[in-house]
Amino acid sequence: MMEKAVIGIDIGGTNTAVGYVNFKGEIIADCFLPTQGHQNFNFYIDILSKEIKNIIDKFSDKYEFSGIGIGVPNGNFYTGKVEYAPNLGWEEEVNLAEIFKLKFNAPVFITNDANAAALGEQIFGGAKGMNDFIVITLGTGLGSGFVANGKLIYGNDGFAGELGHIIVKENGRTCGCGRKGCLETYVSATGIKRTVFELLADKNFESEIRNIPFNNLSSKDIYEFALKGDKIALEAFDITAKILAKSLADVIAITSPEAIFLFGGLSNSEEFLLTPLRKYVENYLLKVFQNKVKIVKSELIDKNAAILGAASLIWNEITI
Amino acid sequence: MMEKAVIGIDIGGTNTAVGYVNFKGEIIADCFLPTQGHQNFNFYIDILSKEIKNIIDKFSDKYEFSGIGIGVPNGNFYTGKVEYAPNLGWEEEVNLAEIFKLKFNAPVFITNDANAAALGEQIFGGAKGMNDFIVITLGTGLGSGFVANGKLIYGNDGFAGELGHIIVKENGRTCGCGRKGCLETYVSATGIKRTVFELLADKNFESEIRNIPFNNLSSKDIYEFALKGDKIALEAFDITAKILAKSLADVIAITSPEAIFLFGGLSNSEEFLLTPLRKYVENYLLKVFQNKVKIVKSELIDKNAAILGAASLIWNEITI
Repeated sequence: MMEKAVIGIDIGGTNTAVGYVNFKGEIIADCFLPTQGHQNFNFYIDILSKEIKNIIDKFSDKYEFSGIGIGVPNGNFYTGKVEYAPNLGWEEEVNLAEIFKLKFNAPVFITNDANAAALGEQIFGGAKGMNDFIVITLGTGLGSGFVANGKLIYGNDGFAGELGHIIVKENGRTCGCGRKGCLETYVSATGIKRTVFELLADKNFESEIRNIPFNNLSSKDIYEFALKGDKIALEAFDITAKILAKSLADVIAITSPEAIFLFGGLSNSEEFLLTPLRKYVENYLLKVFQNKVKIVKSELIDKNAAILGAASLIWNEITI
Repeated sequence: MMEKAVIGIDIGGTNTAVGYVNFKGEIIADCFLPTQGHQNFNFYIDILSKEIKNIIDKFSDKYEFSGIGIGVPNGNFYTGKVEYAPNLGWEEEVNLAEIFKLKFNAPVFITNDANAAALGEQIFGGAKGMNDFIVITLGTGLGSGFVANGKLIYGNDGFAGELGHIIVKENGRTCGCGRKGCLETYVSATGIKRTVFELLADKNFESEIRNIPFNNLSSKDIYEFALKGDKIALEAFDITAKILAKSLADVIAITSPEAIFLFGGLSNSEEFLLTPLRKYVENYLLKVFQNKVKIVKSELIDKNAAILGAASLIWNEITI
């Protein structure tokens, strides 16, 4: 019997990445295109579909094409629709799963990027064999995927896992969601930058960051300043770790996971983020949960994770 | 074939209740005994076992005895053990499931009271047919059981569902768990009383409650004062609803339930607790979850709920 392979598509606000993934999690072929800037939505879908067809055809003697998994902001697993995704500039409701099902006559599943990351971790990453774990993606925002009893929690409407939008500070920072004080306004690439600028205002430490405008500072820059011993950058990491720790202690009390995997730029900093995070989580935890929960970096390689996660939507459903 | 029935045991700090439950959730027979005050733990188990045997024997011509479910503080579904339950005055670790398995040669499952309540709601109450819901028990403390994808979340170690111990106020009220600011120090029968006394200290309203010592005031009294228009009691309910609402908005963002069921004394107050609670939850919710989640009183009758919940541990596992 021919080996199976599935298409994983990661649709981001800027770029779309496509990969052809076998059951080992190897990416046989991939391609990339911009998500925006096409004449209209249909043009974008046409180009994307052509690229996918090329890949499938190229390997048709070796792999049996078995479905398409799509990770996309606000993607709903139950309905197959992308509902109100402002960053994509699409119509209010797009039935993406249906569109690809018709074009490829194959199973198509969609979900949001953080849920896809959690499935990817379960099937190809560090959560293999785990029934209860959480994946947290730290990018521009904070996304999360919760797995309990071996299954991803989509919730009643398909939108579960919005840990980035628990409110950690009443009347706190303005969030893109229209409310105030959401976790992701503190813990994310943007969140740590906001903390840096709050510290610049609050403290009198000297810091090279005082010469950099808000719009020019990335979370990677903050990491590099921390490496050089910049006190503002170091304190910003510490504050970020502490706020995340408090939220993690709360979700551990609720779902009691075996492990929490962190994914994305910020999570690469073992010394400035993960180490203090573990310490603070233990401090905040209810006694019964202490010294039990592993907090580790995702085992998926950044570059491939989103594609593998998307592909996992299909690998999760088919038997090899 | 003879109809099956299972024993449900609810072990509380003060009393133990036993019921023989058929598949309709009817309690065919019950009995009650004190949990404490026995010569030692073995005497307690012996008396309890005798009572159970009597019930089973009495109905042996009509019902096939099919197992024992036990709801007990700190009961662990995975290990069958009651681990460090200070209120029971038992040894640090008691393998309760094993003890009853040996005595009755039948399936025995245990869990904590809030998880049992959630199973009871799913099998015999308002959550029939629901895959994603939460049950919150408001008693001396605040317990919770989370169901996702149709299954109760026990978590990796069996202790999931400790919503009462998420921290809602840094350096807040001292909690029995040894930490500060846990949700149950604000939202529970004890929590609302603490709020009343904080208000008595803070405000200058006249209130009849000013004549009642702390130790003599029950949450039922507070409800009755609220009915009479007492401003302290009314404000205490409002504050309780608001704090619970904020936490519910957070857990909705995480697990996206179809409904949240409230159980126990405080939840009987539609006008002072449930109505403001629903309003505040909607205010706090992320847009995508607004006007979706039902917040209702448990459909289990208070008197029977704990027994039905415990019995559900077996009904959940056996096929009729």
